[in-house]
Amino acid sequence: MNCDEILLNHCCNLAWQTQSLALPNPSVGAMVVDKNGNILGQGVHKIAGSPHAEVLALQEAYYTLSRDERILALKKSDDIHAFLLQNHNQMFKECALYVSLEPCNHKGKTPPCAHLLAQLGFAKVCIAALDNHALAAGGREYLISHGINAIFVQSPALQEAAHNLLLPFETLRQKGRFVLFKLAHRLDGSYTQGRISSQISQIFTHNQRSVCDWLCISGKTLNTDNPKLNARYALPPYDKTHLPQIGIISRHVDSISEHLASRARIIKDIEAFRALGGFIIVEGGFNLLSMLKDEIDMLLIHAAFWCDGAHNNAHFIPHNLKAHFKLIHTMPLGEDLAIWLR
Amino acid sequence: MNCDEILLNHCCNLAWQTQSLALPNPSVGAMVVDKNGNILGQGVHKIAGSPHAEVLALQEAYYTLSRDERILALKKSDDIHAFLLQNHNQMFKECALYVSLEPCNHKGKTPPCAHLLAQLGFAKVCIAALDNHALAAGGREYLISHGINAIFVQSPALQEAAHNLLLPFETLRQKGRFVLFKLAHRLDGSYTQGRISSQISQIFTHNQRSVCDWLCISGKTLNTDNPKLNARYALPPYDKTHLPQIGIISRHVDSISEHLASRARIIKDIEAFRALGGFIIVEGGFNLLSMLKDEIDMLLIHAAFWCDGAHNNAHFIPHNLKAHFKLIHTMPLGEDLAIWLR
Repeated sequence: MNCDEILLNHCCNLAWQTQSLALPNPSVGAMVVDKNGNILGQGVHKIAGSPHAEVLALQEAYYTLSRDERILALKKSDDIHAFLLQNHNQMFKECALYVSLEPCNHKGKTPPCAHLLAQLGFAKVCIAALDNHALAAGGREYLISHGINAIFVQSPALQEAAHNLLLPFETLRQKGRFVLFKLAHRLDGSYTQGRISSQISQIFTHNQRSVCDWLCISGKTLNTDNPKLNARYALPPYDKTHLPQIGIISRHVDSISEHLASRARIIKDIEAFRALGGFIIVEGGFNLLSMLKDEIDMLLIHAAFWCDGAHNNAHFIPHNLKAHFKLIHTMPLGEDLAIWLR
Repeated sequence: MNCDEILLNHCCNLAWQTQSLALPNPSVGAMVVDKNGNILGQGVHKIAGSPHAEVLALQEAYYTLSRDERILALKKSDDIHAFLLQNHNQMFKECALYVSLEPCNHKGKTPPCAHLLAQLGFAKVCIAALDNHALAAGGREYLISHGINAIFVQSPALQEAAHNLLLPFETLRQKGRFVLFKLAHRLDGSYTQGRISSQISQIFTHNQRSVCDWLCISGKTLNTDNPKLNARYALPPYDKTHLPQIGIISRHVDSISEHLASRARIIKDIEAFRALGGFIIVEGGFNLLSMLKDEIDMLLIHAAFWCDGAHNNAHFIPHNLKAHFKLIHTMPLGEDLAIWLR
């Protein structure tokens, strides 16, 4: 085992912080390290169309080494690429770049990262997962053919971590849809009546809503909570004005309030649910989970670690959930814990 | 920020795997890394009286470099120390040692690690937390005065992680007692009737029982489950025959079964609970937690991610818990997640 594995695992953890938010792109984390182990820059790919993780890590690393503030003003990937190529002055010759996914090798919305890295001339590029996407693949080969020591670091634990990180991206690409079920609960498992999650949890949830195609809830939630189902707490670069299409999962819906009617569809059964495409978020409790358990790709629990004495005794809602999920990642979200399962 | 911080955080994570099991000693994790970043050996301090983390990491590292199997046969810290001093042949001259806690500087149950490291002549020793324990402190100073580049790596995130890791040790040392409340639940928060945790969770729990002074349960659990309250699933080096003293927390206890009577004490109130000393484990649900919430130092949740349909609707037990815990660490235990809070 080599320290590269621990450092790549760190890049995977960075990438989880924006898990699902860059869809249809993968979440990626990267960092630039000098020969003394100093971390010059770190980056995560935040949203489709914005600079890739490697480019953001390079931007920060360039600033760390040069203190040239001009690069910080650049927002577009093209501009950062061009600036780096013109000004790098061999400063990365003895540096290593760590990245959770093979650098891309095609010009999509941004120029190819592999070409940029080759021209900057890194001493080493360490990669946790190869890209299977035919269009973007070949970054490692390109780097090697241009004289860069590009290493695919293989260990069972890291491979699993890197694979799990890519699940939403791979699922959406292969099946045309990625279904995430989101559930929040307090210390005792209660989840009804009022606030559960911390502010940072709420921001994460609204960032997800701002990039999803469908936001689904049960008819019961619609009637009980009359929710707004918007992304009002999303923070840039996520668009708080985005209004996802709404799926109301229910056999009978009496009425839909005016502010939702224009974007709501009644989902009467599993067949109708299966007809939805894209990034689909379902927010609900154990009864809805029980109904949809075979349809979901990932389960995200926001666990809060408090009880206030007021909700405890009212919370129990009978359900028939019979399911077994597999833990894939945890990360703190403010005071809460995000638990990712599949 | 430097990669040393990430590598020390990895050592802290290693140490959490034996959290509380080495009491009254701290849990410590260490690794030996060569100049190319290869991890030659890793170690965690497993149980009081056994070799320290640094010594186990050195033992593995020596074997990795030499393939000399004689060192693997050594179990006692004295013997490993002596063997290393005689046979190291400067092999660690260009290596770094990472350790979550300052190497000890006194001869306790084992010879001082700081002296061993100084004689082996490491290129660098990185430390996540200084030892405040007057008797053992001074390891870093000793190393520096013997020409070793011993670095106390300070960053807010790492300091917090290293501090949290030491909480059980510090609490026991300062207050004479460390109270851990342990609670297990399924995906929906249910925790009654039958199995909850995975086998690896159970082993961890029984390893803890094998080193604790008191194991406390409610009178209700005693009556309902007639539990064995032993450490039968503990694995070496933990002693599965250890029988902790039992505290029955209840105002009225009708009868205590014969196999428990000789080691059981009735704890009638908070005052009686406060009279207990040493490493105290309380295993219970939300009612007991509600009663003891101001008495506990840490809360450990074993979260299982399944529901079987059979227990769901019977599980709800009214409680009045009003409490707010702070997340300090998570780690997988087989299929379960261990969530450490305070």
